[in-house]
Formats: sequence, structure tokens, C-alpha cells
Amino acid sequence: MTGEETRLLMGETAFERVGARLKDMAPGIHPLLVSQEGGITDGGAPIAKEDAKPDIAWMSTDILMTKAVFPFVETVLASSGLDWVQSGAAGFDHQIFKSVAGVTSRFCNSNAHSIPIAEFVIASTMAELQPVAERRAAQAESKWQRLPFRTIFGTKWLVIGLGNIGQEIGKRAEALGAEVTGVRRTAKPTEGASKVITPKEMESVLPEMDVIALACPLDETTHHTVNEKFLKRLKKDAILVNIGRGGLVDEAALLKSLDEGKPAKALLDVFETEPLPEESPFWNHPSVRVTAHCAAWSPVSEEENDKLFLENLSRFLKGEPLLQEVPIDQIKAA
Amino acid sequence: MTGEETRLLMGETAFERVGARLKDMAPGIHPLLVSQEGGITDGGAPIAKEDAKPDIAWMSTDILMTKAVFPFVETVLASSGLDWVQSGAAGFDHQIFKSVAGVTSRFCNSNAHSIPIAEFVIASTMAELQPVAERRAAQAESKWQRLPFRTIFGTKWLVIGLGNIGQEIGKRAEALGAEVTGVRRTAKPTEGASKVITPKEMESVLPEMDVIALACPLDETTHHTVNEKFLKRLKKDAILVNIGRGGLVDEAALLKSLDEGKPAKALLDVFETEPLPEESPFWNHPSVRVTAHCAAWSPVSEEENDKLFLENLSRFLKGEPLLQEVPIDQIKAA
Repeated sequence: MTGEETRLLMGETAFERVGARLKDMAPGIHPLLVSQEGGITDGGAPIAKEDAKPDIAWMSTDILMTKAVFPFVETVLASSGLDWVQSGAAGFDHQIFKSVAGVTSRFCNSNAHSIPIAEFVIASTMAELQPVAERRAAQAESKWQRLPFRTIFGTKWLVIGLGNIGQEIGKRAEALGAEVTGVRRTAKPTEGASKVITPKEMESVLPEMDVIALACPLDETTHHTVNEKFLKRLKKDAILVNIGRGGLVDEAALLKSLDEGKPAKALLDVFETEPLPEESPFWNHPSVRVTAHCAAWSPVSEEENDKLFLENLSRFLKGEPLLQEVPIDQIKAA
Repeated sequence: MTGEETRLLMGETAFERVGARLKDMAPGIHPLLVSQEGGITDGGAPIAKEDAKPDIAWMSTDILMTKAVFPFVETVLASSGLDWVQSGAAGFDHQIFKSVAGVTSRFCNSNAHSIPIAEFVIASTMAELQPVAERRAAQAESKWQRLPFRTIFGTKWLVIGLGNIGQEIGKRAEALGAEVTGVRRTAKPTEGASKVITPKEMESVLPEMDVIALACPLDETTHHTVNEKFLKRLKKDAILVNIGRGGLVDEAALLKSLDEGKPAKALLDVFETEPLPEESPFWNHPSVRVTAHCAAWSPVSEEENDKLFLENLSRFLKGEPLLQEVPIDQIKAA
């Protein structure tokens, strides 16, 4: 740092949103902006990556989700070390984060996606339990037809992973009258689940479950959680929802099991290879709903991310504990 | 009553579901069964309507929703007066209930539909905020396309009518992060709404509302609640949901307003004339979702109705207060 100045590397579009608030709350901040085209500017003038020398960096989603992420990360790596990096994503299993973890003392991930992802899970499940498409078809034919539907009320849910996202899913399912069992490494009481079990205990409860939501991080212990053995224990009418990572599911085993009739539906937002290759049998499978890794694709995510960054920046400047801090070693091991 | 015996008029299909439980809990009950074809039997033998002489009657949905309702009601009216009638419906504005109210001392409606109706409202609203149909279309074309969506989180809801149904809607919207204002005759604190206002105060809050749900009974004070003046005050992107009664909406005014661009969507499950006539412009209107009065059309309704009847029967036999009792005068005035 130069005197009291803190050099902050951030996206130009993010600065357009929060610049005014930033100046108000932290006048000592010196912003270095990365444009969507990848150029870096300091006070409007272009500078070289090596000259940016940021103390802290904010990898907002408008950086993470665009090609601007590469010059951004190169600029981070060209620095002599950062004090703090705020990410706009929940996951940190991508190589980008491992590289960044090598040069920063502290790293925070984001819980901003929890709310839209949880709504995505509820809406997608309801769209299967309720005959949304059939209702539209009946209307198109001017047909007065009473179509019955199933409720989330009275169903049993297994939420695998009780981090921010799993908790938000569980809280909503509970509010709708579902009985939620959560899975986490240590079975301690957690919001969003009336019962918490460990991964080892998971197998025994699978046959009771109506809805299974995958919301855990991907690492060597969770890779292919949904495999042949897991699928064999499911109910025929179970609904599987994956908004975690593609690698949580053995896709070949899932396809085989779907062809044999269970689960009844697989709602897949993430895949082992993304974008999902054109030749994937998931596209045309009648029991599969494919979405394009968009469970968090809501304006709410951006607003909540901006709030989280500003709150954490204020805490960082005051030397207070940061929200959503992830130990550097955990990122390197992910 | 003959000695300790209580003569109960009920549907044959309802008896198939609860007969065993009935005998266990109330051996003094003498069931008189109305078949789906309309015949009445006593211990398996056919009897005339005039000879049934029920003391109490259970108008379950399998009676109310079929043509068996007519012989059922005639049998009730042919009696010398009943002590209690349990209905399987929430509403009591139909002539059937007014007729029955003339011959029974006590009447109870049902809250069994509240849960499925509330889920219907949430699911139908989410199916508009989230691009459910567009996602399916993208999948059909094997197109990896990130489609943004809106959340219920952060929206403002107006729930008109805070009875069982309105409360269940409000509780769910709140759990999803909406701010819920409820409308009821007397503005007392009620579950499912953070703020309760009277019908008079309603107009002033309409311009803020993202979702408006009609969940009040139909009577002369609520007839055409949604009229030209009401519609003029809505936001362009508001969603109107009617799961109450068709008569709550001035349909001509709604059509005119929809053609002028607001509300953005009208989700209509009930209509002034049902079934909705083939020539109704609602069928083909791009901003309207028509469903066939099926917001409660879920197995949950039946299970909850059976539970309510058995609980109320137990209370009736013990002389305890009944759940969901509606004053006879209120039914006659509806």
C-alpha cells in the first residue's frame, strides 16, 4: 500500500454500479478498472498489467463470467502479493481460484447466489410436480380440463451439502411443508434441515426421498456422489436436482438408471463438460431437464454480490472479520 | 337420533377411505351412503331419500364435485333438520350451501384446500418469473442458453383476503423473501403478512405491488374488487392471480386493461362463468393463463379434508368446539 491508499482491482461495469457508494464509504480506495475488452485503466489512463500492483481485488461475476477474467487474473498474478480477494462465486474448485490463492493472503467466496439458486430449485421442482406444460396445452386448445397436481407439502427432501445454498433450499422446502434431511460432513444442527446426517448415513435414507438436491462443493470426497449404487436405492418417482457441479454425478450411471425408469426426473443445471456437448443424450431425454448453468442467473445475485463486497470492504478497512472467508489451504486442496 | 346412534350421511367413496377409522373412533355412528350414481344405502340395502333422516352430514369433495351432490342435498333437505354439516369446500356462496343452511343448526367449511391452493399460487407465479417454457424450448433445440430470471425474493405482494388460504399464500411468499401486505376487513395482525390494511387503504398501495393475489370470499362488498379503477393503479409488470371467485374481477375491465398492457400477466383459475365459455377471449390472450378451477386439485386436499372431518366428528361427539365453524347467518347472507 502507498500511505493510506488501497489499490483495488475491479471490473469497469462493477465500478459503474458501485463507484459512487465506494467513494463515499472508502475515500482512500484507488480503483484500477478492468474493461470487458481486457484493458486496465488507472484514473482513465491505460496502464500495463505489471504496473497495476493491486492490494486487493474484487472478482465480480461480470469479470468471472466473461473473457475479461483472463487479463484480470494475469494482473493479480503479476502483483507482488495481495491482502484480500473477494470472489463473486460460491465455488472455488476452478484453476483460476487456485492460481489466485497462490498470491493472496485472504480469500472470500460469495453467498449471493444462494437465494436465486434456491428459488430455481423450488420452481423447477414445482414445475414437475405441477403440470405446468399440460395446463398451457389445455389452454391452447380452449379445453376446460381439471389437471391434478402434487404438492411439495408432505414430500421428503434430501439436501446434500448444507452450506449457504443448501440451507436456503432447505428453508424454502420446509416453509412449503416438506421434511428436510440435510447431509454435511459433521452432523451438527443446521438451519434448513430438521435432521442432519453424515455422508455415510446417506445411503440408508435414500429410498424414502421424494426430492434430492445436490448442493455440495466438488472435491475428491464428493466426486460421483450420485453413482450406480446411489441410484439403485432411489424411489421410482424421485426427482434429482443438480445445481452443484457436474462432477457430483456419474453421468453414464445416471443415463443408464434413467433409461431403467428412475429417478422420474433429473433436473440438471450443471454437467461434467460445459457447455453440454451437442451429442449428449441428456438433451433429448424425456426425463431430463437441461438448463445452462443458470440457476443463479438473476439480478438478485448481482445486487447481493455488490452488497457483500461493500460490506466486506468496510470490514477489511476496519480490520474486522470478513464474511465468507475461505482458508487459503482449502482452495488449494479443492 | 335413535338412542346413542348418530345417523351420518356421507359419500360411498369417502366411506371407502375412512370407514375403518370411523368405526374405531365412533362405533355409535350409523353411516348412510350416497353412491356416485346417486343411490342411498343403509347397511348395503337401498333406501328412499325420505327414510335416510340423517342427524349429521359430510359433503366431501367427491360429493361436491360430482352429480351425486343433487341427491345428497335432496336427502339433507328431506330430513327434519340436522345437527351439523361438514363441507369439504372453503367457499359457501353457492346456492347448495344456502339451502343446506336452512335445515342444519351448525355448519363447518374446510381449510383443506389452503395448502395446495397456496402452492398453486407460488408455482404459477414462479412459472412466470422464471422462463420455464423458454428453458424447455432451448433444450428442445440442444441450445446452451443462459436465460435470466426474476425471483420472488425482493417482490412486494398484496394478498386480498387473509383467511386460511390468504395466510398460507402469504406465509410461503414471505419464506421466499417477499414483503407481504394483507387486506382484511379489520386490520389486525395476521400470520402471513407483515402489514395488514383494510379494503379502503388498498388503493393507495396498489402501485407498489409486484404480485396481487385474490383470496377473499365473494360477497356484495368484494364483487368486482378488480375493476377499472383498481387496474389503472397497477404497475405495468404486475402479476394478478385469482384463485378466489370469478366475480371478484370485472372481466371486461380486465380484458381492456390487459390489452392496454397491464397487468403483465393474469393467472386466472376462476371465472364469472364456469366452465369458461369457448368464445371467451381469455383462452387465447397472450397475457392470460387459464386453468380450470383446479388450484386445489391435489391429493393433499382429500387427505386434509378426511382429517378435518374425523377431527370435527370427534369434537362433535364430545361436545367440544368445532373447527372451521361458520355462523349459519353468514352462509345465508353470502
